[in-house]
Amino acid sequence: MRGAVPEPDHDSTMDDLTIYLAGEIHSPWRDRLRELLEAKRLPADITWVGPQEEHERSDDVGEDVLGEQPSQRYRDLVGGQVNALRRRVQLNRADLAIAWFGPKYKQWNTAADAGAAVAMDIPLILVRDPDLLHALKDLDALAAVTVETLEQAADIVAYIFE
Amino acid sequence: MRGAVPEPDHDSTMDDLTIYLAGEIHSPWRDRLRELLEAKRLPADITWVGPQEEHERSDDVGEDVLGEQPSQRYRDLVGGQVNALRRRVQLNRADLAIAWFGPKYKQWNTAADAGAAVAMDIPLILVRDPDLLHALKDLDALAAVTVETLEQAADIVAYIFE
Amino acid sequence: MRGAVPEPDHDSTMDDLTIYLAGEIHSPWRDRLRELLEAKRLPADITWVGPQEEHERSDDVGEDVLGEQPSQRYRDLVGGQVNALRRRVQLNRADLAIAWFGPKYKQWNTAADAGAAVAMDIPLILVRDPDLLHALKDLDALAAVTVETLEQAADIVAYIFE
Amino acid sequence: MRGAVPEPDHDSTMDDLTIYLAGEIHSPWRDRLRELLEAKRLPADITWVGPQEEHERSDDVGEDVLGEQPSQRYRDLVGGQVNALRRRVQLNRADLAIAWFGPKYKQWNTAADAGAAVAMDIPLILVRDPDLLHALKDLDALAAVTVETLEQAADIVAYIFE
Amino acid sequence: MRGAVPEPDHDSTMDDLTIYLAGEIHSPWRDRLRELLEAKRLPADITWVGPQEEHERSDDVGEDVLGEQPSQRYRDLVGGQVNALRRRVQLNRADLAIAWFGPKYKQWNTAADAGAAVAMDIPLILVRDPDLLHALKDLDALAAVTVETLEQAADIVAYIFE
Amino acid sequence: MRGAVPEPDHDSTMDDLTIYLAGEIHSPWRDRLRELLEAKRLPADITWVGPQEEHERSDDVGEDVLGEQPSQRYRDLVGGQVNALRRRVQLNRADLAIAWFGPKYKQWNTAADAGAAVAMDIPLILVRDPDLLHALKDLDALAAVTVETLEQAADIVAYIFE
Amino acid sequence: MRGAVPEPDHDSTMDDLTIYLAGEIHSPWRDRLRELLEAKRLPADITWVGPQEEHERSDDVGEDVLGEQPSQRYRDLVGGQVNALRRRVQLNRADLAIAWFGPKYKQWNTAADAGAAVAMDIPLILVRDPDLLHALKDLDALAAVTVETLEQAADIVAYIFE
Amino acid sequence: MRGAVPEPDHDSTMDDLTIYLAGEIHSPWRDRLRELLEAKRLPADITWVGPQEEHERSDDVGEDVLGEQPSQRYRDLVGGQVNALRRRVQLNRADLAIAWFGPKYKQWNTAADAGAAVAMDIPLILVRDPDLLHALKDLDALAAVTVETLEQAADIVAYIFE
Repeated sequence: MRGAVPEPDHDSTMDDLTIYLAGEIHSPWRDRLRELLEAKRLPADITWVGPQEEHERSDDVGEDVLGEQPSQRYRDLVGGQVNALRRRVQLNRADLAIAWFGPKYKQWNTAADAGAAVAMDIPLILVRDPDLLHALKDLDALAAVTVETLEQAADIVAYIFE
Repeated sequence: MRGAVPEPDHDSTMDDLTIYLAGEIHSPWRDRLRELLEAKRLPADITWVGPQEEHERSDDVGEDVLGEQPSQRYRDLVGGQVNALRRRVQLNRADLAIAWFGPKYKQWNTAADAGAAVAMDIPLILVRDPDLLHALKDLDALAAVTVETLEQAADIVAYIFE
Repeated sequence: MRGAVPEPDHDSTMDDLTIYLAGEIHSPWRDRLRELLEAKRLPADITWVGPQEEHERSDDVGEDVLGEQPSQRYRDLVGGQVNALRRRVQLNRADLAIAWFGPKYKQWNTAADAGAAVAMDIPLILVRDPDLLHALKDLDALAAVTVETLEQAADIVAYIFE
Repeated sequence: MRGAVPEPDHDSTMDDLTIYLAGEIHSPWRDRLRELLEAKRLPADITWVGPQEEHERSDDVGEDVLGEQPSQRYRDLVGGQVNALRRRVQLNRADLAIAWFGPKYKQWNTAADAGAAVAMDIPLILVRDPDLLHALKDLDALAAVTVETLEQAADIVAYIFE
Repeated sequence: MRGAVPEPDHDSTMDDLTIYLAGEIHSPWRDRLRELLEAKRLPADITWVGPQEEHERSDDVGEDVLGEQPSQRYRDLVGGQVNALRRRVQLNRADLAIAWFGPKYKQWNTAADAGAAVAMDIPLILVRDPDLLHALKDLDALAAVTVETLEQAADIVAYIFE
Repeated sequence: MRGAVPEPDHDSTMDDLTIYLAGEIHSPWRDRLRELLEAKRLPADITWVGPQEEHERSDDVGEDVLGEQPSQRYRDLVGGQVNALRRRVQLNRADLAIAWFGPKYKQWNTAADAGAAVAMDIPLILVRDPDLLHALKDLDALAAVTVETLEQAADIVAYIFE
Repeated sequence: MRGAVPEPDHDSTMDDLTIYLAGEIHSPWRDRLRELLEAKRLPADITWVGPQEEHERSDDVGEDVLGEQPSQRYRDLVGGQVNALRRRVQLNRADLAIAWFGPKYKQWNTAADAGAAVAMDIPLILVRDPDLLHALKDLDALAAVTVETLEQAADIVAYIFE
Repeated sequence: MRGAVPEPDHDSTMDDLTIYLAGEIHSPWRDRLRELLEAKRLPADITWVGPQEEHERSDDVGEDVLGEQPSQRYRDLVGGQVNALRRRVQLNRADLAIAWFGPKYKQWNTAADAGAAVAMDIPLILVRDPDLLHALKDLDALAAVTVETLEQAADIVAYIFE
């Protein structure tokens, strides 16, 4: 075929990854994971996606945008809708999902995101404390790998680029 | 085209539905829902699918099949695997999913099943007590409809056949 | 392979079809189309699916099921949700969609159903009066065939079984 | 793996988004929305896609390309075809769809695009005046979020990048 | 799970198959293939689908349904539309496609149906005379199997049920 | 909706399953598995699908149908094609795949079928001797469950219907 | 989210497109189309993909790579395979397909590519002389738009970027 | 549409490709293939993806990350899980898969990757010694092309960019 062809780069391996971080937003576990991966100085560009991490803003965003709603039910519904839209846009971009379950909270969004990722054929790393073993055993069976610490999750992400 | 053609039935509307019931298995909410729908005498054949409903068997099935495992972690993993296989085969058949959240338990399987159903384009009815409103607000946003009682869920199923 | 094999039927051609009828529910056009096809005595079993055809029930169903809502907005939202769930379950079953646009009403549900059917690779027959030609020209371009009368739509359905 | 690996960028979050703008093309609502988002100076690159915005060109393009057609029906059909091709190419690129319903016109293309976006798992923001509440209630139920003003739609897009 | 469970049939193997027959409609090759398979008395029920086999009706159906069109171009377009709708509905049902190329005619519909079947992951048997070898070499490469006679195609269908 | 509605069956649970049996065809392991499941007298109708089980016929079928080929390479290719067509038609029907690895043979078809099943979202039960543990560890990770005996595989199938 | 965020580009519309050119390779129609589009100086980067355009190389490539084959049938099969692989890789990248039918040759690859593009939801522009109207009427019905000249096809591509 | 539009590049053809290399990791066949392609100085940027190529690390990675496991079975399972996650992330990126079967080892991962690639509609080049002809005949039938040497595979990749 004719036409101006750009000089090729030197051949290389995959050097970017988009990771969706499912999990509660009350503790700074995402920052910890990002620091762990940054310290590894991977030969790759990581794009992080996931839910809104400021808890109050996440709760208020529905009424912040749409104004006061007539009841708590609808306050929460519109908040949930805006957050669900954000999460769906972001999850659609992910190559990999990491779901972290901490010791507190219901964390049903985390589980729903994890189930959705698996159904969308996005491989899932599940991070959970041994105390949650029994309650999470079926999600364990759906995950590509289950680990107990963020360090282990970071090791697995790094392994993709070895 | 030639060939023996069967006598057609009288024309009709859709008269069957397969419903996946996601939710905990410690209380008889599924029986209640089935009774509610049976009492409606719908002009339709409902096929019910879902997880194992005998709690103890659900916990033990991994070791029942594979023998004793070397640790609690692996006991739960093999149990989770057998249950996850069952659930995936059954969810693949569903036209509709109903997820019920009760007042107790982590119910992470329920949330994961709900997320998977939505990702698989299976419409979801979410049934949850008003007390769980805030914790489930993002799932509320993903569900086709959210209701508070099994009676309401049964009314919606019946409406499909009106 | 061993095992009891049932006696085969005589070989035959396709003899059933599920048709989704998208369109407004204020006039009895669906009944007319069903009568037209019944009169053709096709060697096939037609299953008809589509939205609730009783207009008042369609408007009220949200509050009928969920109780009074705090505003018209939410009365309509819950009504819309229950109807959308019904329609999605039914559209998922369809082999063919027929969208009828009449001279009155906004008919946005009809257009949304038609767009969804095309996106789901369900072939679409569009039925519209010549007066609506210009307003529907892009939907005309998406439809498999556009006709002007229900008689023509019925002729095309019958042609599938010739 | 061996080979020259490029220096990675600093890790970052998602910084681009492609938005499909469904809606009529007689009023400058798209310009208004673009200005609103530009004023927010998002840390992201927005790509806007959607139908031809010059109304006359949109109506004439079929005959502009293919020459005079033998009747109004076919003039509109070829025009519809060229526009539908453009819209499908552009919608296939979208991460998010925004459908705006104004006070005038049939707007059936808007509804068809909205239905297609939902069926293609592209999250949808519906923007409609409260006057259109009842007529759009089923689309409201399909949308990820429904708002009443372009300002609200812009706030939600911005929220994805917070 | 509780509920009345029907008596199971004896276990068995797959005993039905829907076959789409792509190819020209001027010669009775479909009848020949059907006779060949009938003579094999397979333990299976074959459903045959495919285009209209009466050539004149196939050419006329557009105007038969829609009335006279303003030019040959549009006469053929509406005819093509009605036939394409029929073929898409039928191809969507197929487990297997058989494309037969004879010594005459352009047979572009046959090739388009074959390409569509492969893209839809429906396995394809290509039947073509050795004279057409070179012209069909790329389709040969896409087909699951290429044979030269209808007898060979029938043998392969029968093999599925051995 | 009007029309003659059939009397519904009593409500019930899922009562049929199609199982693809991937594995070598030199030993009667499939008969053993079928007997094990028959002995369980499940309230369900099992349809068994899979490759040709007569080894010699499987090797010869290419030349049986297409006549002698010019070299061993093409003899094997046409044989492979006819068998691959059969397997794809059958795998497309499966709800569940069971892959059995025995102590002998390359069994590359088995592994390819297992990989395809997982990629098609068909849950997989892997049956392998502990001796094959290391060689099959990545397939173990893809399977829904891995077991060591046919009895265990049969127990898991039966569990779906408890 | 924290991390170094790149300066956003100015917001813009879609500015690239990948076009698959299906059609015979004996005449320089592709060069003509590329020149026509280049002359339009579109604000967009077009990537052209499609089959090998050197006819002799296309015919020989199978034996060029694999060595002499035992018969014409297998010479053509291996050639067809290498070309089909190339075409599938390239078609998978396309946003749009243009199929050109000229006055000569069987052009079955063109028709198969067109059918595949439609089945893969890639919009199709069909370019054919009025003489081919009747033979191509069903493909006409599948195409997004049918035109008679390369100039018209170029106009439609340009319209996407207006 | 308004907004700053970047200067387009000169029009060009496809100039990048991501290739997944399935096959054992005990011999340096991947390096050989990369060298062969580098020597061709293609006007394209090749991205190579595939499994971990250091054998020992591949075997140990499960316990390297998760710590010592209670048995060989679980040591291998966690190793398999980490490797399977890596492979799935990488295969999801591929435009083309090349599976190489050497004279030694079970190579079941190779076959499973090949089966998965075909099921995911990623074209497959199979490279195998003539000695493996019979054992691989069904995979041969699934591959887009089968060759005997890495040189031939490199020739085919290069052909995509001619």
